[in-house]
Amino acid sequence: MADKTTQDTNKKMVEAITSMEVDFAQWYTDVVKKAELIDYTSVKGCMVIKPAGYAIWELIQKQLDERFKATGVENVYLPMFIPESLLQKEKDHVEGFAPEVAWVTHGGLQPLAERLCVRPTSETLFCDFYKNDIHSYRDLPKVYNQWCSVVRWEKETRPFLRSREFLWQEGHTAHATAEDAEERTVQMLNVYADFLEEVMAIPVIKGKKTEKEKFAGAEATYTVEALMHDGKALQSGTSHNFGDGFAKAFGIQFADKDNTLKYVHQTSWGMTTRIIGAMIMVHGDNEGLVMPPRVAPIQVCIVPIQQKKEGVLDKAYELRDRLQKEFRVKVDDTDKTPGYKFAEAEMRGYPIRVEIGPKDIEAGKCVLCRRDTREKIEVSLVELEAKVGELLETMQREMLERARAHRDEHTYVARNLEEFRKIFNEKTGFVKAMWCGCQECEDKIKEELAVTSRCMPFEQEEVAEECVYCGKPAKKMVYWGRAY
Amino acid sequence: MADKTTQDTNKKMVEAITSMEVDFAQWYTDVVKKAELIDYTSVKGCMVIKPAGYAIWELIQKQLDERFKATGVENVYLPMFIPESLLQKEKDHVEGFAPEVAWVTHGGLQPLAERLCVRPTSETLFCDFYKNDIHSYRDLPKVYNQWCSVVRWEKETRPFLRSREFLWQEGHTAHATAEDAEERTVQMLNVYADFLEEVMAIPVIKGKKTEKEKFAGAEATYTVEALMHDGKALQSGTSHNFGDGFAKAFGIQFADKDNTLKYVHQTSWGMTTRIIGAMIMVHGDNEGLVMPPRVAPIQVCIVPIQQKKEGVLDKAYELRDRLQKEFRVKVDDTDKTPGYKFAEAEMRGYPIRVEIGPKDIEAGKCVLCRRDTREKIEVSLVELEAKVGELLETMQREMLERARAHRDEHTYVARNLEEFRKIFNEKTGFVKAMWCGCQECEDKIKEELAVTSRCMPFEQEEVAEECVYCGKPAKKMVYWGRAY
Repeated sequence: MADKTTQDTNKKMVEAITSMEVDFAQWYTDVVKKAELIDYTSVKGCMVIKPAGYAIWELIQKQLDERFKATGVENVYLPMFIPESLLQKEKDHVEGFAPEVAWVTHGGLQPLAERLCVRPTSETLFCDFYKNDIHSYRDLPKVYNQWCSVVRWEKETRPFLRSREFLWQEGHTAHATAEDAEERTVQMLNVYADFLEEVMAIPVIKGKKTEKEKFAGAEATYTVEALMHDGKALQSGTSHNFGDGFAKAFGIQFADKDNTLKYVHQTSWGMTTRIIGAMIMVHGDNEGLVMPPRVAPIQVCIVPIQQKKEGVLDKAYELRDRLQKEFRVKVDDTDKTPGYKFAEAEMRGYPIRVEIGPKDIEAGKCVLCRRDTREKIEVSLVELEAKVGELLETMQREMLERARAHRDEHTYVARNLEEFRKIFNEKTGFVKAMWCGCQECEDKIKEELAVTSRCMPFEQEEVAEECVYCGKPAKKMVYWGRAY
Repeated sequence: MADKTTQDTNKKMVEAITSMEVDFAQWYTDVVKKAELIDYTSVKGCMVIKPAGYAIWELIQKQLDERFKATGVENVYLPMFIPESLLQKEKDHVEGFAPEVAWVTHGGLQPLAERLCVRPTSETLFCDFYKNDIHSYRDLPKVYNQWCSVVRWEKETRPFLRSREFLWQEGHTAHATAEDAEERTVQMLNVYADFLEEVMAIPVIKGKKTEKEKFAGAEATYTVEALMHDGKALQSGTSHNFGDGFAKAFGIQFADKDNTLKYVHQTSWGMTTRIIGAMIMVHGDNEGLVMPPRVAPIQVCIVPIQQKKEGVLDKAYELRDRLQKEFRVKVDDTDKTPGYKFAEAEMRGYPIRVEIGPKDIEAGKCVLCRRDTREKIEVSLVELEAKVGELLETMQREMLERARAHRDEHTYVARNLEEFRKIFNEKTGFVKAMWCGCQECEDKIKEELAVTSRCMPFEQEEVAEECVYCGKPAKKMVYWGRAY
């Protein structure tokens, strides 16, 4: 089994990544580079998503898109450019986005009559489209989505988490009534929450953003918030209810059943490539990436031991042919040592490693190694498919359970300002604390403790009676935290 | 069967589209609008791809991507911006593209230190990436592809055929030898040709572009050329062999097995949303769109007749539930008349329309109507799935055969300049004629006859001995035509 070699080479590769306890940010950067998910480019603040990274995004897209379509979503594609006059039609929206857009000023050799920005988000374009496309109640609802890239001119960038260009989906809907819009807003938040838990194995808190933290132009923003391994929060998906604000700014009206003209009610909702960053920071360890089976482009990596011995490689290929009828599989038949291959498979986060050598073949068995716990399990070759299938299901479930336990262990309660300060001085995590609902307290908390309100969770508790900052009667329980 | 109503309403809708014999360009525009494939926008030269259009693109992407991956292609994502200095590294390439790119000059409120263009194509970005990613022969080949949008600042635009922003895939590969690069170039051309014939039912001529018509910076460009219903040609996919030209301009070297540093050899290949335009112009008719079954988002549209009668709608839903296990199906249960629904189903190009009314139900049968031939076939409900499956296969095959027959009927031979002129004065189609290989003749032909060389087909014939223009000894047979 070449166990000695394994440990040595393993050690050598592991030394190349910073330990997450030493420097979490550096650990993260090391993992995205060494697992070959991304590369930096000559285009400042933009990244190359390499095959191993893009294949994760393809699996995310496929599974999220299926869930969208099951709720009646239709995909479309709108232009990537927004004329400046169109961006300016909704006042709050333009104030939120104008400072961070990229401007196109020339087409070919000619200056443009009007500047175009590269879309940072497409509310204004969808409004411009809906204005002409919606006439009657029969045209409603419109439940459209697009998969595309968007640009926001960020100053500080980090792979997946914050980059000047990123990939996402943006859903934009129009409805006849305020109730329908609210229902869709919450429905899509639930789609995100279920997807994150069931596919990405990331548990989330569902809730509403405060006025201060809501989306530019929205009446209400709902969010799913996840906790990373270092105790920092990551907003993992948002769903906005615009009411009829954009409809009024753009003049999107329809003739209702009662023959009167009414404004539509709109929503939008998005999830981005940053959830790949979330996956890394929730599940990764000091050996590298750990991928939940349902988004792992390679679920099983077969490593032949003493592969030059007769029959070993053939057996490895035979197992691959059997397994790939149900799973995503590869054989590492390169001329590297098994130890190096083990370490590499761990770095890349493949859920199961299958080890098969001459002695195993003789005994009609092989060894499965779980990436998450690194536990080794001997299985008979006869029941290989069944055992691999079971193990992947177990891992998917246990990764979610472990992430939930970690989050719960790093969720604290503060009943007063003293407790609040003490927790954030000593720890990083979610803190549940009461709030009076006034923005001044929220601003002060951000200023003094460097933490933000993550959300007002749907599941409210009354952990105290007074606002954690001002001591006045509390209106809401809020999750607070330091965020990516 | 409401046949009277059908004809009346049908007529009314048909009057709304220009006949293709009267004005082909207007017919095309009418079809893309009335079949709800696209909409115009406030962004000049850019279009909205609506659900019915985007669903076609999704089916194209899925089937093309599967064919790519079967040849070892891996998907990636590179930035949408190219710094001006990077675009300028390869001389021919920048000359070809600089006049038609969109320039970003400001990020947020600040002017940029260096202008960025929005990618018109990504050779330069892939080179910049490969320069850092390729070190040894072990890193080769790289066979990467991306699905994205690109921008070219066109003056005249037409939906799908030519727009300032369009969707495409662009494959970019790097190889150790010139032979490997040439093999991949031709391999991908064959993937396009097979895809177009087998999925889009569009027959193509495979060949090489002349020096004049090749891609900016390429050593050789291969193309698949299709003939539209009006006799004009449409370049439907191209595959370029760059040799080591870009590698030398960007310094992309690898250590070969013999321990010497060598330049890589590169290829690129692309197919765009314009093939949706090709599909319309090859298969469409005066009733509207006609979609080949394999790219039809709706393959079967069930129209209930006298749907208010008890049991009719239930039966329609029952048939849908049966058929959608194998096919893409919808029931038109709106309150429009059957005649209107028939005309609409024809306009939208659904391959099969199923008509089911009270009498049909009583007799245990229904009527299938083929979109391509408009033939009606009575089938027993017991054998519905089998008959629908057979009919879709038959339609897919016969649509290709009809398109091939049309192309062959509009392919002419010119042995001398007089014949050449006569044909293009009287007809529009492909003309096979010999060429001496000199660009002056090609330029003159374009100037005098307003036709371009489409390609030098792989299947060469000797239709004459002399160049059709200058009369000197001929080197190649060329397909000539007027092109989109």
